[in-house]
Amino acid sequence: MKTVDQHLADCLSAVDTLSPLELRLLDAHGCTLSEDVTATWDLPPFTNSSMDGYAVRSADLAGASESAPVVLPVVGDIPAGYSGALAVSPGQCARIMTGGPMPAGADAVVPVEWTDGDIVQVSITKAPQPNSYVRFQGEDASQGELIVPSGTRLGPAQLALLAAVGRARVLVRPRPRVVVMSTGSELVEPGEPIAGGKIPDSNSFMLAAAANAAGATAYRIGFVPDEPKQLITTIEDQLIRADLVITTGGVSVGAFDVVKEALGRMGTVAFDRVAMQPGMPQGFGTIGPDSTPIFTLPGNPVSAFVSFEMFVRPVLRRMQALEPLHRPTVRAVLQSAVQSPDGKRQFLRGDLDVEDGRYVVSTVGGPGSHLLAGLANANSLIVVPDETTHLSAGDAVTVIMLERRAG
Amino acid sequence: MKTVDQHLADCLSAVDTLSPLELRLLDAHGCTLSEDVTATWDLPPFTNSSMDGYAVRSADLAGASESAPVVLPVVGDIPAGYSGALAVSPGQCARIMTGGPMPAGADAVVPVEWTDGDIVQVSITKAPQPNSYVRFQGEDASQGELIVPSGTRLGPAQLALLAAVGRARVLVRPRPRVVVMSTGSELVEPGEPIAGGKIPDSNSFMLAAAANAAGATAYRIGFVPDEPKQLITTIEDQLIRADLVITTGGVSVGAFDVVKEALGRMGTVAFDRVAMQPGMPQGFGTIGPDSTPIFTLPGNPVSAFVSFEMFVRPVLRRMQALEPLHRPTVRAVLQSAVQSPDGKRQFLRGDLDVEDGRYVVSTVGGPGSHLLAGLANANSLIVVPDETTHLSAGDAVTVIMLERRAG
Repeated sequence: MKTVDQHLADCLSAVDTLSPLELRLLDAHGCTLSEDVTATWDLPPFTNSSMDGYAVRSADLAGASESAPVVLPVVGDIPAGYSGALAVSPGQCARIMTGGPMPAGADAVVPVEWTDGDIVQVSITKAPQPNSYVRFQGEDASQGELIVPSGTRLGPAQLALLAAVGRARVLVRPRPRVVVMSTGSELVEPGEPIAGGKIPDSNSFMLAAAANAAGATAYRIGFVPDEPKQLITTIEDQLIRADLVITTGGVSVGAFDVVKEALGRMGTVAFDRVAMQPGMPQGFGTIGPDSTPIFTLPGNPVSAFVSFEMFVRPVLRRMQALEPLHRPTVRAVLQSAVQSPDGKRQFLRGDLDVEDGRYVVSTVGGPGSHLLAGLANANSLIVVPDETTHLSAGDAVTVIMLERRAG
Repeated sequence: MKTVDQHLADCLSAVDTLSPLELRLLDAHGCTLSEDVTATWDLPPFTNSSMDGYAVRSADLAGASESAPVVLPVVGDIPAGYSGALAVSPGQCARIMTGGPMPAGADAVVPVEWTDGDIVQVSITKAPQPNSYVRFQGEDASQGELIVPSGTRLGPAQLALLAAVGRARVLVRPRPRVVVMSTGSELVEPGEPIAGGKIPDSNSFMLAAAANAAGATAYRIGFVPDEPKQLITTIEDQLIRADLVITTGGVSVGAFDVVKEALGRMGTVAFDRVAMQPGMPQGFGTIGPDSTPIFTLPGNPVSAFVSFEMFVRPVLRRMQALEPLHRPTVRAVLQSAVQSPDGKRQFLRGDLDVEDGRYVVSTVGGPGSHLLAGLANANSLIVVPDETTHLSAGDAVTVIMLERRAG
């Protein structure tokens, strides 16, 4: 059997970061920038006022006070967006609004609160320091300066900075398009009757949501019955829009393992036994003319979930150039004893909490890999190492933190 | 001046959680469930096999071994989704696939690996325990049991569980629809020339992205010039699709404060000075026939960002019934001295890190509220309390953790 680490390494080595794509700013939110963005111009591009008030020559106001205000003629109005060429001569001032370009000659702004607000002859009761309430051209960034390096994940502030230097579109790693389908002749769409050995498809919802949460754009195809020809046709039809394909079910050793049978004919998919519990039967490879990566995950919902976390999510992050590839882990104190098979890495559903300033973790639900209700109550996965067969209450364990449910 | 806490309380008290809406499962991802979901049927709905193999009566196989295999006739095939009524009599077995319904009479499954895999007469080399490799009806959840309580945020595992009990749609708190616009006659669209006192709009990109990250669906309207009539018309046109409106700019005390002038006529918007830096001028109220909440944030990008974090994000989370309302905070060791105005809560852009197992935080960029490049390099906000005017290197401070940039 392969180890978890070996299988992950094999999967990662078979995928590349997606080719950069130019996207509009809001579409690039959450993506990784794949160009070095430099300042197109100085930031701010021109010296301007940070307050509503009056642009003055500070020397004119030396000694201004409540008892001895200085009165200056107002030679013009400078709103934000003003494109005129107003200048302030000695003994003059100009009304100016926040963001308005500083007029030639002026070296400070007097806030309107220090004045009587008159628009013809303003009375000023306080002397400004030179340069006060002035935002100087280039003080945030200089033209040509690297302001958002390649590899940066774009959040709200990064998008604002890109807009401020005039970028409407930027080159980023796009979101991987992930086609998700379940397999199994027992499956019906949720809401349809389940008489006669049927059950609703649930894995494709789980995996599509998990792919979206990992930054991908998921297309849930739903489910395909256990018919190799139909599965091949469905996958072939979807390859045109897939950067990655995920199937679940049909990968163990039985007579109805449609996925194994179908994919054996389509590409280089290898079906392996990986030394883990749950999730032992794993298939991974590439198919079709573009060598599209495909994961064939086991059909048990908990096995599919753990397999996604261990193998698919790191691959999706690699495709997006997102670091780190893995979820954060912590060491926590195990609250009750657990058994584990020798030679397999076991992933138990955990409830991670903080008590007295330290992490503690309890198991949630049973170990059965079909137990969805337990999975839905877990906030973490407890990792029992491959060679460990027993852990006692009080032992320290590594715990993988899943999305915070109330995040 | 109002305190930050008082202004937040006023904003929160004016908004309600959005009315529940029935959404399809994948559309409900990330939303808060607003119904108690019980199991429509037992989970699993019927007793079935957890392996590909043979359904047997375990008593028939007592003593089976490599040297003394037991041979049983195979009376039928049970694939997943099988709706027949096959029964296994003493001395018989049936081939069964993972998920196939257990036939009457059988009490255990023998994995195919313990057999020669024959489909007529199978030779079995190991005796199973009773009940082994059988998933029992109802062992995950019982019909009628509460499985996903109202108030749960729906992630991948919760969606799978809802699908498994046949729910195609569920009642959730919908994503708030947030209309975002900048104001200012100096604004142009990024990519357009900035000659003549113009600058690109950046705030509306930042706030739309921040609203989306907070779970909303943001509509970026772009920017409106400093014309009250045009602003009123734009807002009125958008109210039909807005659960919340955000504007930036035009809210201080100058002659061109179009937002103040326009909204003074439209609703109950109050313009307050809040004791914080940046972000002192704040407007909040409700407008239009549906009393739609509106935030009029200051126009400086850092002021707008901090205002969003302090007031808008908690309101958006309240609308979605998401808990906790606030981002996580930590106590960290400040790396250099900072000054702060008396009587105002100051929010400094921070770079939070872990050194020797403790949190440390440095300031990033200058204090100017127009400095976007510094904001783009911050991962946190350092909170300097209202009455504190000086902090020294080594002092402990409260730090608000923003989205992890590489998350």
